[in-house]
Amino acid sequence: MAIEKQGEKILEGKRVQVKKLNEKFAWTKLLPDDEWYPKAVRRMIRPARWNWSDCKAKLQEIASDPIPGADRRFIILVHEDTEEMMGTAPGALIGMTILNPGEGLKAHRHTSFAIYHVLQGKGYDVMQQEDDPEPTKIEWTKGDTFLCPAWTYHQHVNDGDEQAIILTVQDFPLLAAQRNLLFEEPRGRDNIKQVNKKFVPHKDTEGSFKLDL
Amino acid sequence: MAIEKQGEKILEGKRVQVKKLNEKFAWTKLLPDDEWYPKAVRRMIRPARWNWSDCKAKLQEIASDPIPGADRRFIILVHEDTEEMMGTAPGALIGMTILNPGEGLKAHRHTSFAIYHVLQGKGYDVMQQEDDPEPTKIEWTKGDTFLCPAWTYHQHVNDGDEQAIILTVQDFPLLAAQRNLLFEEPRGRDNIKQVNKKFVPHKDTEGSFKLDL
Amino acid sequence: MAIEKQGEKILEGKRVQVKKLNEKFAWTKLLPDDEWYPKAVRRMIRPARWNWSDCKAKLQEIASDPIPGADRRFIILVHEDTEEMMGTAPGALIGMTILNPGEGLKAHRHTSFAIYHVLQGKGYDVMQQEDDPEPTKIEWTKGDTFLCPAWTYHQHVNDGDEQAIILTVQDFPLLAAQRNLLFEEPRGRDNIKQVNKKFVPHKDTEGSFKLDL
Amino acid sequence: MAIEKQGEKILEGKRVQVKKLNEKFAWTKLLPDDEWYPKAVRRMIRPARWNWSDCKAKLQEIASDPIPGADRRFIILVHEDTEEMMGTAPGALIGMTILNPGEGLKAHRHTSFAIYHVLQGKGYDVMQQEDDPEPTKIEWTKGDTFLCPAWTYHQHVNDGDEQAIILTVQDFPLLAAQRNLLFEEPRGRDNIKQVNKKFVPHKDTEGSFKLDL
Repeated sequence: MAIEKQGEKILEGKRVQVKKLNEKFAWTKLLPDDEWYPKAVRRMIRPARWNWSDCKAKLQEIASDPIPGADRRFIILVHEDTEEMMGTAPGALIGMTILNPGEGLKAHRHTSFAIYHVLQGKGYDVMQQEDDPEPTKIEWTKGDTFLCPAWTYHQHVNDGDEQAIILTVQDFPLLAAQRNLLFEEPRGRDNIKQVNKKFVPHKDTEGSFKLDL
Repeated sequence: MAIEKQGEKILEGKRVQVKKLNEKFAWTKLLPDDEWYPKAVRRMIRPARWNWSDCKAKLQEIASDPIPGADRRFIILVHEDTEEMMGTAPGALIGMTILNPGEGLKAHRHTSFAIYHVLQGKGYDVMQQEDDPEPTKIEWTKGDTFLCPAWTYHQHVNDGDEQAIILTVQDFPLLAAQRNLLFEEPRGRDNIKQVNKKFVPHKDTEGSFKLDL
Repeated sequence: MAIEKQGEKILEGKRVQVKKLNEKFAWTKLLPDDEWYPKAVRRMIRPARWNWSDCKAKLQEIASDPIPGADRRFIILVHEDTEEMMGTAPGALIGMTILNPGEGLKAHRHTSFAIYHVLQGKGYDVMQQEDDPEPTKIEWTKGDTFLCPAWTYHQHVNDGDEQAIILTVQDFPLLAAQRNLLFEEPRGRDNIKQVNKKFVPHKDTEGSFKLDL
Repeated sequence: MAIEKQGEKILEGKRVQVKKLNEKFAWTKLLPDDEWYPKAVRRMIRPARWNWSDCKAKLQEIASDPIPGADRRFIILVHEDTEEMMGTAPGALIGMTILNPGEGLKAHRHTSFAIYHVLQGKGYDVMQQEDDPEPTKIEWTKGDTFLCPAWTYHQHVNDGDEQAIILTVQDFPLLAAQRNLLFEEPRGRDNIKQVNKKFVPHKDTEGSFKLDL
């Protein structure tokens, strides 16, 4: 058996950037211990509270039509001490979704999970995983807790007569920090993108989440 | 403006599974504190060492042709206390790749990162990110450390005259536990799959990593 | 300046276990790629729902006196697909605490954070961080969300006239998997322990959490 | 059985800060979806390489006496795209320790793990876990890989005739981001501290790591 010189074949006829041996990558550094530690430690997180009266007011504000600015009716409870994480705690966020009667959202999926707890109203979710031949409709009502696992298509629908409010727990901030957050939005394999400054879900997928009002 | 009843439209004409209100999901449980804690805590991890003499012998074994069983020349240093993580430490693994002179691997990508440290030999990697118009060839030699970030196509090539041995650090076990590990293997959007018992990289992509010998 | 041979001094007069060079650690293994992958991938997580009617019934059960079995009135919403994580999702748990009017809990702290959302009732938390000269009393009422950061002493108190029910989000399962979960329970530096099969919080600190009824 | 009003007892005679209902915590915000996403996504990580020639030169620099600035002979391979993580990849760091013949380090422990790979030289580590009646001496030589688990006392000793160089893998950046990184340095329960801007290991424990030269 003759060993094939893969190396030559792999780049055959291809244009490539080359990083020669010993060439320095501009975005690397070698730091001694005493210079590194003070920069690597993070600020302490203080206890905090988000008042229901404030949340309720903000939810009513975004429940109006047209939605002011946003493409879905969702707020995030941010703790500023989490800094770049923009989380409620480091690695996790609490959000709240409000849906007017009859409203629904288009399907998408992401590598972050979402746990939902229904604070008000009734409705259902439609979820589908890669190997599911058909979607599952999961009905929910006030007090129920339900899970959308990672990389599962999902969409909320309010089929009740009052506004539905859903508390959401996500590990989005952890995955964004790890850089392993991927979104498919709207549904369609060509729309699978790694989330970063060059691809911002909802912003760069403008329209995909618009409520069909 | 008339509000459209999305709920009805979303499932219009679709076959769905339905989970009615109050129906129990068989895979859920409500556990009181005292029943939960003993099951939720994990076993302690003991200090450990993997001897170079053993690693070297195992690497030589898989450097032979045909590769016995595996589809690439890669070993993982497993600590049994990490149990289902199958890691070297909880959340991280150390692996070692050996490549005979002239050998290369096909490109793939995954949401786990990989940091490489060259223990022996010389060669190069070809990496490409989603927005890169062309790939980058990164040359490496003994002692160099280099990074393949999450969701970046990559492939090693040994273009030297001796065997190349590369120590690899990956957060695979953490991502597998989080269930946000995705593989694209071989390169091609239709091959993007979530890693789980129903899709095992290298096993379910048999052939995709075969060395072209 | 004479270099001191630290090595000899460090172990001077000490009894030690010795792991000689090349001695195999029984809990280590070197696995080739094809043997490792099928064991390292994890089972898929299915969508799930925990019904409020079931949660409510379970909460009422543990709200009775004496508490049946447990040392606090806390249930965890477990998803069996998370297996050893015993979480609601991989890496995170949703729990619910019920407190009868007038009840409080003793202070403890842990490296996991806790986000609380008040489902019913009113009361307050007492929290204190290492550098705080005095504790902070944080009042809460239905609908409020509040955070107890990592390694912060905390205790709930129900000072209202009805039962208080608090939904809790914790990253306990992630930290237990990482093995970096520490508890101090009850308050006191000598009680700082790493959580594992040899130290189970609440079980091995029996009495520390007993409600003072 | 009379229920005791815990609430009143807990704060009896104590000075406390009080956060009244509806009082706003200055470090909290409620952000709608469209304002939050662009801030919550992170920058992409580019491929990178740290050249051995550069690492070697930096290691020789800090191997001199007195150590210039630092209190131990340790460098970190920083990738600037990881920003506040100051890691080699998001969540993980590669460092390199150099020890002159005869040098050792004082014992400490932390909730991050460390995997070591010996690049040059020989020596041993002394490790001890909470339940170990006596420490374990783990001998190592070039090519060996060994693990110091989370919350395990450890110290390196070079008992060979040449400089020892050890590559180190740590999840420090992940734990610092999660804010569940604790250090005990030097050994002693009163020295257990949460790592943050108010407590920087090595800087705020000046002297504890000084080599005994």
